[in-house]
Amino acid sequence: MLSKAKIKWIHSLDLKKNRTELHLFIAEGHKLVTELLPLMPCRFLTATKEWLQKHPDIEAAEIIEASEQELSKASNQQHPQDVLAVFEIPDRKPDLNYLKNNLSLALDNIQDPGNLGTIIRTADWFGINTLLCSIGCADAFNPKTVQASMGSIARVAVHYLTLEEFLPALNIPIFGTFLEGKNIYEFRDLPKAAVILMGNEGQGISDKLKPIVNEKLYIPEYPSGCKRAESLNVSIATGIICAAFRKPNHINS
Amino acid sequence: MLSKAKIKWIHSLDLKKNRTELHLFIAEGHKLVTELLPLMPCRFLTATKEWLQKHPDIEAAEIIEASEQELSKASNQQHPQDVLAVFEIPDRKPDLNYLKNNLSLALDNIQDPGNLGTIIRTADWFGINTLLCSIGCADAFNPKTVQASMGSIARVAVHYLTLEEFLPALNIPIFGTFLEGKNIYEFRDLPKAAVILMGNEGQGISDKLKPIVNEKLYIPEYPSGCKRAESLNVSIATGIICAAFRKPNHINS
Repeated sequence: MLSKAKIKWIHSLDLKKNRTELHLFIAEGHKLVTELLPLMPCRFLTATKEWLQKHPDIEAAEIIEASEQELSKASNQQHPQDVLAVFEIPDRKPDLNYLKNNLSLALDNIQDPGNLGTIIRTADWFGINTLLCSIGCADAFNPKTVQASMGSIARVAVHYLTLEEFLPALNIPIFGTFLEGKNIYEFRDLPKAAVILMGNEGQGISDKLKPIVNEKLYIPEYPSGCKRAESLNVSIATGIICAAFRKPNHINS
Repeated sequence: MLSKAKIKWIHSLDLKKNRTELHLFIAEGHKLVTELLPLMPCRFLTATKEWLQKHPDIEAAEIIEASEQELSKASNQQHPQDVLAVFEIPDRKPDLNYLKNNLSLALDNIQDPGNLGTIIRTADWFGINTLLCSIGCADAFNPKTVQASMGSIARVAVHYLTLEEFLPALNIPIFGTFLEGKNIYEFRDLPKAAVILMGNEGQGISDKLKPIVNEKLYIPEYPSGCKRAESLNVSIATGIICAAFRKPNHINS
């Protein structure tokens, strides 16, 4: 049985303050939880009797059987799932040597937790292991972000940093999207070591970060010059740019 | 003053049944409403005194000044806006001649209204004027879809059709993503007239639509063969595929 106190404790992790203090986050649903279980230490898991019977080998510090009604009270989802787990937030430090030799993503003040989660999932697909977030970005362990990341949160390290200080010190090209940027498809050789900086949903790249971008790019609308939608959603733009960076070079030659 | 009856009427449009019956939908927020006003007939608009004073020339069949509290009661948003409007759903028919000679998007059972709205916005950016949805797709005039579309809902026509009958009759190539598909970057000349069919969030393209796809493609993960994330979010995949179709040919030659 899931006690009221336990439900209250789970919901306390809806708040960033408590997640940060306790180094814990929530994941819900069979697909997400079973993907995270082998990858991250699980502090607590609660599930229906049926789910627990089907998964006798799961490892978690504490396991509690719950009714659907109890799970529904603990859940943040519109359609409560048959399993909910609390995992430890990993303690990761940026690996400077890795960053200097690989492609990374940096996010300037991304506000929507769903966008952040989708970007984490996209980074994972394209083998980008590190996400460098400005201090003002949404929290990577927000329940909505975790759900949208679809398990990629376990594989992509997310760091919160003062980007205007951190990024130039890497001494590698910093790409950013600007209306006056160069058509992304006109870059002949996109480098293997670089940072792709994506701006805020409404404002784009902030004034204090603009000066550190040394490669301005642009995703061309169609037909060229016929601008109808004002912009692309930031997670869509991120996907298109990551795809362009990861396109095999030989195909274009 | 916004009456209780008016607030109830606005909220009745949260339901697809009522939207379909009344041919009306809700849009909220300054940016979205001002973008839609010149493009679609506005049946009703309610806003704060300040907003109305700043926009003396707006045209709507009915305009009511409201307090922030009243607007908040009428709103579906987490952070209520200073303007909310009700627009007429356009009565559009698919243009077969246009479809046979242009690039279109088809969606098979897309469930998330936010994904649908983001796809509408992406289609607009890439000059794709028509979205062909299976009957089971989310509603294009769901408030979440409208908000995510960022005004593109006025420029992209969305039709609900039995895709397995409609698409083959167009007699143009139908592209779909499959795990065993051909790397999208290995297609030398993506056609100007085609349908890009995107599958459901969890299940991909359904069994009844698989046989009508005659060009199977795949967005390669990186590094190639090292599959970590199970898939890309469907709106991200749509963005990457649209970008590939709309890439100027001369750049690749």
